[in-house]
Amino acid sequence: MIYISGGAACKCKMAVEELLPIGAGIASFAVAGIYAAWVTKQKTGTKEMTDISESVRVGASAFLRREMKIIIPIAIGLTVIIGYFIGFSNGMAFAVGAALSAVAGLISLKITVKAAVRAAQSTNSGLGKTFALAFRGGATVGLAVPAMALIAITVLYLIFRDPITIAGVGIGASLIALFIRIGGGIFTKAADMGADLVGKVEANIPEDDPRNPATIADNVGDNVGDAAGMGSDVYESYIVTMLASILIAALIGAPENILYPILVGAAGMIASIIGTATIGSRNVTDVMKPLNLSFYVSAGIAIGLNFVFTYMFLGQTTTAYALFATTIVGVALVPVIQKITDHYTNYKFKPVKDIADSAKWGYASLTLMGIIKGMQSTGPFMIALVAAIILSFAISSAAAPDPSQALLYGIFGTSLTAMAMLSLAGIVLSIDAFGPIADNAGGIVEMTGMGEENRKVTDEIDAVGNTTKAVTKGFAIASAGLAALAMIQAFQFEAAEYFHMVFDYSLTNPAVIVGLLVGGLIPFIITGQLINGVSRAASKMVDEVRRQFKADPEILTGKSKPDYAKCVDIATVASIKELWKSASVAIVSPIILGIMLGPTAVAGLLMGAVVTGIFLAYHLANTGGAWDNAKKLVEMQGNKGSEEHKVAVVGDIIGDPYKDTAGPALNTVIKLLNTVAIVFVSAFVTILAL
Amino acid sequence: MIYISGGAACKCKMAVEELLPIGAGIASFAVAGIYAAWVTKQKTGTKEMTDISESVRVGASAFLRREMKIIIPIAIGLTVIIGYFIGFSNGMAFAVGAALSAVAGLISLKITVKAAVRAAQSTNSGLGKTFALAFRGGATVGLAVPAMALIAITVLYLIFRDPITIAGVGIGASLIALFIRIGGGIFTKAADMGADLVGKVEANIPEDDPRNPATIADNVGDNVGDAAGMGSDVYESYIVTMLASILIAALIGAPENILYPILVGAAGMIASIIGTATIGSRNVTDVMKPLNLSFYVSAGIAIGLNFVFTYMFLGQTTTAYALFATTIVGVALVPVIQKITDHYTNYKFKPVKDIADSAKWGYASLTLMGIIKGMQSTGPFMIALVAAIILSFAISSAAAPDPSQALLYGIFGTSLTAMAMLSLAGIVLSIDAFGPIADNAGGIVEMTGMGEENRKVTDEIDAVGNTTKAVTKGFAIASAGLAALAMIQAFQFEAAEYFHMVFDYSLTNPAVIVGLLVGGLIPFIITGQLINGVSRAASKMVDEVRRQFKADPEILTGKSKPDYAKCVDIATVASIKELWKSASVAIVSPIILGIMLGPTAVAGLLMGAVVTGIFLAYHLANTGGAWDNAKKLVEMQGNKGSEEHKVAVVGDIIGDPYKDTAGPALNTVIKLLNTVAIVFVSAFVTILAL
Repeated sequence: MIYISGGAACKCKMAVEELLPIGAGIASFAVAGIYAAWVTKQKTGTKEMTDISESVRVGASAFLRREMKIIIPIAIGLTVIIGYFIGFSNGMAFAVGAALSAVAGLISLKITVKAAVRAAQSTNSGLGKTFALAFRGGATVGLAVPAMALIAITVLYLIFRDPITIAGVGIGASLIALFIRIGGGIFTKAADMGADLVGKVEANIPEDDPRNPATIADNVGDNVGDAAGMGSDVYESYIVTMLASILIAALIGAPENILYPILVGAAGMIASIIGTATIGSRNVTDVMKPLNLSFYVSAGIAIGLNFVFTYMFLGQTTTAYALFATTIVGVALVPVIQKITDHYTNYKFKPVKDIADSAKWGYASLTLMGIIKGMQSTGPFMIALVAAIILSFAISSAAAPDPSQALLYGIFGTSLTAMAMLSLAGIVLSIDAFGPIADNAGGIVEMTGMGEENRKVTDEIDAVGNTTKAVTKGFAIASAGLAALAMIQAFQFEAAEYFHMVFDYSLTNPAVIVGLLVGGLIPFIITGQLINGVSRAASKMVDEVRRQFKADPEILTGKSKPDYAKCVDIATVASIKELWKSASVAIVSPIILGIMLGPTAVAGLLMGAVVTGIFLAYHLANTGGAWDNAKKLVEMQGNKGSEEHKVAVVGDIIGDPYKDTAGPALNTVIKLLNTVAIVFVSAFVTILAL
Repeated sequence: MIYISGGAACKCKMAVEELLPIGAGIASFAVAGIYAAWVTKQKTGTKEMTDISESVRVGASAFLRREMKIIIPIAIGLTVIIGYFIGFSNGMAFAVGAALSAVAGLISLKITVKAAVRAAQSTNSGLGKTFALAFRGGATVGLAVPAMALIAITVLYLIFRDPITIAGVGIGASLIALFIRIGGGIFTKAADMGADLVGKVEANIPEDDPRNPATIADNVGDNVGDAAGMGSDVYESYIVTMLASILIAALIGAPENILYPILVGAAGMIASIIGTATIGSRNVTDVMKPLNLSFYVSAGIAIGLNFVFTYMFLGQTTTAYALFATTIVGVALVPVIQKITDHYTNYKFKPVKDIADSAKWGYASLTLMGIIKGMQSTGPFMIALVAAIILSFAISSAAAPDPSQALLYGIFGTSLTAMAMLSLAGIVLSIDAFGPIADNAGGIVEMTGMGEENRKVTDEIDAVGNTTKAVTKGFAIASAGLAALAMIQAFQFEAAEYFHMVFDYSLTNPAVIVGLLVGGLIPFIITGQLINGVSRAASKMVDEVRRQFKADPEILTGKSKPDYAKCVDIATVASIKELWKSASVAIVSPIILGIMLGPTAVAGLLMGAVVTGIFLAYHLANTGGAWDNAKKLVEMQGNKGSEEHKVAVVGDIIGDPYKDTAGPALNTVIKLLNTVAIVFVSAFVTILAL
């Protein structure tokens, strides 16, 4: 157990750095509140529009309510179990971590639904206004989510002053991410595919047609899967990385280091607030430009603030500057990963063009070309990550005040790189979350028949939203990977502490090898399960839509209103049912392997899951994203309705569960494995010593 | 350096066990010769048939000749380099390893071409005779390939008496496998897809039609990719596993252990000879039954002989019996892996049935279902492998004569499990290699219009061949994985020996983590490259076929003979060009990483490549195999020509480079990485100490 107690003299000196992160969090909340208030006071549009919006709101609430019915008893049970067996502080931390994540999900859903209908209405006022509405709706989510994470960790740490006693906060975050990210991922694609299969293919009605009983479920899914899902994923990465960073800092033993990752978080948060403020509602012609500007403003300010905080609170030593340098690496990694992801998923570049071209050769060529490009995209992505790890490790280990601490400082440096990357979550999430709002606004415009001009406005924002959505997935995967790597280090040191033993985590230890193989298997198994789950859930949706069309033929003529709620319910129930399988694999496997073969096998398992998980996730996300945009490119070339377009549409369908279910779910899985391992370490008694 | 010298007294005692493996190898060769002679003396059929056969022979020779033109200078250069820089014995071992593998490839091609035309002729005499012909042709390859490997290792070891000085034999095996397995894999699918795309789709002529200029290339590809490719892959696994086993045995220091893996090889070889002899030419109704029988006879005899050899040469100690037990695990693993693979690729079981059903829902469903099943198949496969590793490690480490040697004995036990598995290569390859012969015979029957009845005979054997081909891929992947794991252990100990240092191979070392990530990347990158390579090569083939049809319109009327050789040449050149990219990645990456970050990063790289490589390879092989058989199932259900069938055909095309190029190539890649690492260990100087 590491316990860092501040003396009376130290307390006063630390007050500023302790208050700063809380202040940054509160400021971020306040600005999010201002955006939310601004969005709320905009016009909501016609009754028809608010009706649709209301249906989506009801559907989204139904989804959340049903999930909460399952989550709350589990959360209460886990709070008691963790509190009783592992410690009061951990139980409380768990409850706080879970509750805040759930609140973040709730806020996300509420504000995106509100913003969507208002954005639809504002299409009458042109692109600038609509964009501002979508962006500020998104920024509410973007600023609130990391603020929640930062405040939670800071307050918990300040109360208990020992990172290991608050590790439960990570499990809380993972639990909610599991339901919202994985459950939401299944929900959104089951609804989407179900709606399309009967609607477009059988009944021959367009997408987003109000006669389709699954339309509302589809829109709910966009909110659940895209906005809330990404939020809970990044919240989890944020919490987990922060936790791992302060765990490692505590192992080093220098008290000033412990608050440093929290300060890095605060710097990024302040920078993000300023970044979002650069987006006004004046008219624009290209929405990508202000978005890019807002990001680079944030990145620049983050680096500047990190320097100031380092100078003020970490001292003017070589070590301090070295740690500051690792945060630059982290900040710089964000645009690098974004550029790489953009290259492989944007229709402006060769990979998507090649895929679109291959549609001329038929289904097999298109499928293979998408898979080829997705596989190849893992190359530059991983090289960037590895370069960042090497760089930050080399810088920080070389600057360790004592050579015996070189390893720990090196690991601390890489965790700071991850933290600096995640510190920009505020602006990155803001840039991501306007996409689903624009998408939903487009749906409302379509369903209410507002006209071609209005649809063009939402389409333009939606197109940029698709790009930022794909790019943000790259950010989420990279940060999940770095978060997991930091956690694995923390786990290894923690197990050694707990058992007062030197463990052999080396590649000559067969337990480690077995762990690596079992861990490597998990992402493959879960990918299979989830894609299967989506197709099973989608087929239930198809049955329901068919049943409604048959039971009441007036639905198709537009005279009767379909039963939207039933479709939402079916997708909800199916998604929860399917998510359990993946959840059990992720929760049970480290525990069983740990009890059987001990902590070394678990460390191997965690690492194996990162190694296959990160490549699979990035491949799945990019292949799916590239197929989606290849279809768009074929349409932009004026080939809508051609044989080529039919081929490209199939690619898009195959890509749906790739990019929106399996890929994102793997992020959560690799972090969940780690939080489970960290919290259950005391159970890893090694029955079978290899 | 470990040097095991036998004293004069010891020499006489060891004589029997030294002669035994050589004797087994010679016997295996002799029986292979008998089968070859028997095949050769069968009737060859009409002139039309021998003409086609001759074209295939010429094409296959052209492929091999052109490859040899590149391989021979490289091999001579490497012999000199390895001989000069690393040691004479290693140079010589390299040359022997490469030469014997090339000879094995040559034998494979020659005999399969011979057997195919005779099998086509014997369709007039019914199923039994045709099956015997195809099987004995295959058994020639099956028995000759491992015999070559066993003799090479035994003789080299007996001359130099130090496994590390003959490690070059592994690089030799890898070099040839690279060209035949990877190059052949690209060749076969480029020819196949090229032939189909113009022939079936554009010119509307059936498969295997002699008017198609790419037909002969397609048939050459079956021989090159399926028969010779699998042979060189297993040869490489055999050599590499044997090498790793005796390296580890030498580290233990007990001289009797070093010959034990070689004896395990000899036991399996004798067992395989007897197994192949159970297949007669009497008439049969179900060819699967005698094949199964021959396998179980071999497995039983192998276990029996292993017991006898253990008793005679290893002594009657607990340790000896424990090592014997690990060989039982290895033998038992073969049918377990086969059953699992069969379950996921045979149309008799649920996975393929589900895929065939999903064809009704269209292209996207079929594609996703294939990927789902392939991903899921990695679960039981890996659990079987992991269980075998845990079991054999636990047994052998517990029985170590001295507790300080528990780790080494444990690792030795797992390498013996791998060796026992590979010892059955003779019978496994025999059961595999008749497939391509039956396939080619079917082609000849088709091209010469021999009639429905004759085609039915070859179809029946071909169908079983498809099953055994899929199942043998599972064997090849499992054995490549176990071989690589054994090599990684050998590499780690060797690096420690070479640098007289204790390296930190643990998961806390960032160099290991970087290695794992870079290694994990390699299979993804190479899969992308190879599938891309196939489609590029296929499009060149398409251009050539179109050019010939245009230049001489009489080809399509059957009056002119197309230029088969030109198509073979194009596929050959394209395949060699494409294979270089993957080869450079596999050769250069461990060397660069080793020079930069040292042996610990290389160990990580090797392990990372196994972790992602083995899952990807198995997923690719099974998804491809399952799509192939789903198409067959749709045809068997009488739906040929339906919309469903069109969908299923697309799955089969997507699966072609999955199962026949990328999947098998990964086997070779993960072993090549290891042989490169082992031989270049002295170069890993660690410029950047992390």
